[in-house]
Amino acid sequence: MIVVLRPDATESQIKHLVEKIKSLGLKPMISKGVERTIIGVIGEEDILRVQPLEIFPGVEKVMAILAPYKLVSREFRHENTVVNVDGVKVGGKKVVVMAGPCSVESRELLLHIAKAVKKSGAAILRGGAFKPRTSPYSFQGLGEEGLKYLKEAKVKTGLPVITELMDIRDLPLLEKYADVLQIGARNMQNFNLLKEVGLTKKPVMLKRGMSSTIKELLMSAEYILSNGNFNVMLCERGIRTFEEETRFTLDLSAIPALKRLTHLPVIIDPSHGTGKWGYVPAMAKAAVAAGADGLIIEVHPKPEEAFSDGVQSLLPDNFDKLMKDLKNIAKAVGRDI
Amino acid sequence: MIVVLRPDATESQIKHLVEKIKSLGLKPMISKGVERTIIGVIGEEDILRVQPLEIFPGVEKVMAILAPYKLVSREFRHENTVVNVDGVKVGGKKVVVMAGPCSVESRELLLHIAKAVKKSGAAILRGGAFKPRTSPYSFQGLGEEGLKYLKEAKVKTGLPVITELMDIRDLPLLEKYADVLQIGARNMQNFNLLKEVGLTKKPVMLKRGMSSTIKELLMSAEYILSNGNFNVMLCERGIRTFEEETRFTLDLSAIPALKRLTHLPVIIDPSHGTGKWGYVPAMAKAAVAAGADGLIIEVHPKPEEAFSDGVQSLLPDNFDKLMKDLKNIAKAVGRDI
Amino acid sequence: MIVVLRPDATESQIKHLVEKIKSLGLKPMISKGVERTIIGVIGEEDILRVQPLEIFPGVEKVMAILAPYKLVSREFRHENTVVNVDGVKVGGKKVVVMAGPCSVESRELLLHIAKAVKKSGAAILRGGAFKPRTSPYSFQGLGEEGLKYLKEAKVKTGLPVITELMDIRDLPLLEKYADVLQIGARNMQNFNLLKEVGLTKKPVMLKRGMSSTIKELLMSAEYILSNGNFNVMLCERGIRTFEEETRFTLDLSAIPALKRLTHLPVIIDPSHGTGKWGYVPAMAKAAVAAGADGLIIEVHPKPEEAFSDGVQSLLPDNFDKLMKDLKNIAKAVGRDI
Amino acid sequence: MIVVLRPDATESQIKHLVEKIKSLGLKPMISKGVERTIIGVIGEEDILRVQPLEIFPGVEKVMAILAPYKLVSREFRHENTVVNVDGVKVGGKKVVVMAGPCSVESRELLLHIAKAVKKSGAAILRGGAFKPRTSPYSFQGLGEEGLKYLKEAKVKTGLPVITELMDIRDLPLLEKYADVLQIGARNMQNFNLLKEVGLTKKPVMLKRGMSSTIKELLMSAEYILSNGNFNVMLCERGIRTFEEETRFTLDLSAIPALKRLTHLPVIIDPSHGTGKWGYVPAMAKAAVAAGADGLIIEVHPKPEEAFSDGVQSLLPDNFDKLMKDLKNIAKAVGRDI
Repeated sequence: MIVVLRPDATESQIKHLVEKIKSLGLKPMISKGVERTIIGVIGEEDILRVQPLEIFPGVEKVMAILAPYKLVSREFRHENTVVNVDGVKVGGKKVVVMAGPCSVESRELLLHIAKAVKKSGAAILRGGAFKPRTSPYSFQGLGEEGLKYLKEAKVKTGLPVITELMDIRDLPLLEKYADVLQIGARNMQNFNLLKEVGLTKKPVMLKRGMSSTIKELLMSAEYILSNGNFNVMLCERGIRTFEEETRFTLDLSAIPALKRLTHLPVIIDPSHGTGKWGYVPAMAKAAVAAGADGLIIEVHPKPEEAFSDGVQSLLPDNFDKLMKDLKNIAKAVGRDI
Repeated sequence: MIVVLRPDATESQIKHLVEKIKSLGLKPMISKGVERTIIGVIGEEDILRVQPLEIFPGVEKVMAILAPYKLVSREFRHENTVVNVDGVKVGGKKVVVMAGPCSVESRELLLHIAKAVKKSGAAILRGGAFKPRTSPYSFQGLGEEGLKYLKEAKVKTGLPVITELMDIRDLPLLEKYADVLQIGARNMQNFNLLKEVGLTKKPVMLKRGMSSTIKELLMSAEYILSNGNFNVMLCERGIRTFEEETRFTLDLSAIPALKRLTHLPVIIDPSHGTGKWGYVPAMAKAAVAAGADGLIIEVHPKPEEAFSDGVQSLLPDNFDKLMKDLKNIAKAVGRDI
Repeated sequence: MIVVLRPDATESQIKHLVEKIKSLGLKPMISKGVERTIIGVIGEEDILRVQPLEIFPGVEKVMAILAPYKLVSREFRHENTVVNVDGVKVGGKKVVVMAGPCSVESRELLLHIAKAVKKSGAAILRGGAFKPRTSPYSFQGLGEEGLKYLKEAKVKTGLPVITELMDIRDLPLLEKYADVLQIGARNMQNFNLLKEVGLTKKPVMLKRGMSSTIKELLMSAEYILSNGNFNVMLCERGIRTFEEETRFTLDLSAIPALKRLTHLPVIIDPSHGTGKWGYVPAMAKAAVAAGADGLIIEVHPKPEEAFSDGVQSLLPDNFDKLMKDLKNIAKAVGRDI
Repeated sequence: MIVVLRPDATESQIKHLVEKIKSLGLKPMISKGVERTIIGVIGEEDILRVQPLEIFPGVEKVMAILAPYKLVSREFRHENTVVNVDGVKVGGKKVVVMAGPCSVESRELLLHIAKAVKKSGAAILRGGAFKPRTSPYSFQGLGEEGLKYLKEAKVKTGLPVITELMDIRDLPLLEKYADVLQIGARNMQNFNLLKEVGLTKKPVMLKRGMSSTIKELLMSAEYILSNGNFNVMLCERGIRTFEEETRFTLDLSAIPALKRLTHLPVIIDPSHGTGKWGYVPAMAKAAVAAGADGLIIEVHPKPEEAFSDGVQSLLPDNFDKLMKDLKNIAKAVGRDI
């Protein structure tokens, strides 16, 4: 950590600060420059998170040198983490496509979609049983009934299932029915929920909050790993900007950035990330070209009748065509699908 | 709701859409313009939230006419809501200042601060017992012990207490100790938590998410009101932008906007909204001038030793001086403090 | 255009508004709904841009039906525009790569880079002679001397040249030396500059402003086309968000969005869009996969000595390797490079 | 400047870097920490702007210690700058209100508004003769004719005049007619324009770009001061965010931030900053409470007929009432109007 002093910092202020740093078991290194004195602090930066030095008289600003996360970092683990989802490996050579309806609406429809996406090459089935909805008057999901249909679809197709966990109280239920616990964007900083999934061994897909930085996404993942669960995938699903043509701005530069900073697999959600089905194929292809380890895509045969997010769902035929295109792109970048 | 058709929409597509609208019990009004045909849909817009018309062939876009919230709207209730916090009225002529430490750190310190802010004119004591922290390695709050100290401070000073609810499982505990349940920015769209506090009668202060629109804030409040609890205050605490000199951008235009759209009281948090104590007085004064019903301000006698957010806490003396300035501003806009 | 009235709009207010609409030669269509009266306005929307109806008593809001641009729209011209840059066709099957140094620094260096990028498959040479710099103390470009070197590099390699026009007064000079006039992000809404390049026949590459919407980019392009110059390419180069790991957030969803809305070619700038050379290859590949018509990439053999933006420049060897990868991606999406 | 090395930086990389630093006439100070080696660089940071050290092998990141601007900084000049606008002092005890129509539309209307705002207490008359418009089909201003009307209004009311300079070629004309040259948000980084106004002695009001940081605003002001013109005022007029209820988000925290960082006067534009006249009074009051040195407000007697921005203009009566309220606020914070 580097402490930059104000140009008018007094000797006694500097002395006070130096003593504080020493009292924390850290080593101060003073450099007097032409316009500023700076103090380099050597030792565990974590100690300083609790003791903010910005507040000391004479201090202008404090700059962190190290990333605030450890277990999720590339430095901690150089090789890519491969998460095993009931036999499907996420983070390896194969790009994993998760597909299905936004929400589970009925048994028949789910089974129909599950078979269709399986046939097109999807490796994991998605579907929400508990839905976070901005309006209290919107459809909120089928709950446990939906989970049972997902389980049945898994039995019939062999596709492992990813579904969203919204409420700590539902964790036992989801542990029973789901193969991957999805933590939604709105819960990325629901720290108690993160701790609880950290105490399980279930694979977790953590979605980036719509106004969260990449660093904060990694800090939230750190909550899960530091509680013992290393089976974590990260998902970029669009961030909020001023642009109005798309519902969110899908930040594909998060792919190379996360690949550099962390060993965890990176999944892209072009459906929520754009909010319009017409833009999903282009962004899915771009994601694979940029090095994503997986995609999560909404598919619905009758989007006009979907209970949620029909506007961003692909028809099964469009999904099938997309999968063919994705195979070519994957091959072009040395991956499989 | 207005449905705008594509320039190449066919007669059969229009017919299909018109029949769908009628089948929902709504009335379509067709206008054929020079470049576009549009269909006005008359009836309950809510029906269309479940049946997205965007997805129909031939449709270019759908535009909502009405706000998606009801109970929180000015149209539903013209007069200002006044929330009674154990005798302190929020939303009336008096501007209510809530003050205290970011987190409860020790019994002595809390009592010391409570007495100081009471003396300066604060009407409600703030203090976190459960702290949402981006790092799993940071101080996470004293838990129930902290709540007990808050209760004791209330007994000694007479100040009602506001504290954050992070976890549904803690609700019974907080109902016992707190006078206002704070829902933090990171939980603004934790819809299950909103439902639960909606089932209590406790006053709730709902903070705007750092990337949430004013409309979404109102939708989240609607969750609470629609479950039966009308004792809700809204809090602006800064939104995320590209600016780096402040930690967030405190959106004071939310004050007149909320005053126009809703009957609920509006509180401003200049401490989190700027992230720097030096900017707190200017923004607190601006908030009162713009018509805020209350402020929530962090105060700490030794910010260098605070366990969290020391950088944005005012010293008790600075807070005392600010209160004097705020009284003058309040008077200038026809309010009291 | 749709005018939504306030719930308390009076009959006389409605009458006043209806008369105003008629007096403008437009046709009002009134629909009285359950909660609101709305008026559809049929006729030329442009008339209403000068006469804002929002301001009339009783009006709640006004919603535009049509896009505010014409000549740049897909509706105006269905086929893709192909811009001919001295024989190089931009907007056709071939993906065009423009490469070169950020700024022209010396004759030798420019010739060296020009030969290298030509060999790797670049089709157009980039290089700035006039540089927009945030600091008045930074290198501001070689001016006409730089333009002469670009011309010489063109003669020696056959690569047409793209360079930035910052100042209206430099237009005659640039017309003489450049094959494509680049309008930088900071000048996207320098409307007088747009008008002037609209009066030439030179191909123009218009960069999206860092806080401009896609719609505004199209409006700025409309300035150029409406003055007579249809040789326009659009360039996405990153928008401002709260994310700090990248210098900007490269909005690749602008590719499918622009492809839907306009007939003009779409170029992506991954160098400025990420600000870090390590992220350039992933984003360049993603851009081609998403359907970009071209790329503009910074290349410098000694980035440590570059006068500007060395941090985001690729080494010639890395660029050469990237071009090979791009060829594979282009093929996978049915394009060439 | 602080250079942070990668954990795997080799001794020879460090040596290479240290030699480079020395060769630039700077002094490297090496600190070997537990996890990282860092190098403090002592000397003129400006040298390093041309020689980016990020690019050297083994370097992880480089952090600047000093602000990149000088002449505009509080450190360079401790006392507030007071700009003399033909007798009206901006930056002193008196809060200066600039008011008038968005654009000059006719002689009669301008004179009418000028008299009205003068009577209410405005000190400077605003009005655009050249208008930056996003659409090429919108009203573009009266040009020199408008400037003549402004001059006449000045003669009749005694109010100095502020008007926008959009095009370098118009500078001689504006020098003749205007008392303050306004540089609009879209031209904040039109560096050549900044240089030219820097060469005059005319007062300049520089508006913050809608996606520009406070630091960038100061850098743009530095362009003007470094060319010799110290008569500069800064204007906050709203930044782009995801919020849709207001046209922009007016960043009032820029007031205390700029007051800390610079000696230049700070003006607030609540008309453009909100885009809705109903929100202008609250934000104008907030700005004065927060310490603004001035306001610039749009006033129009018939906003329904305004050629531009009628939606955000106050009626003269509303403006008059606002001025009375502002006087009370100004008094409450120790200022006059």
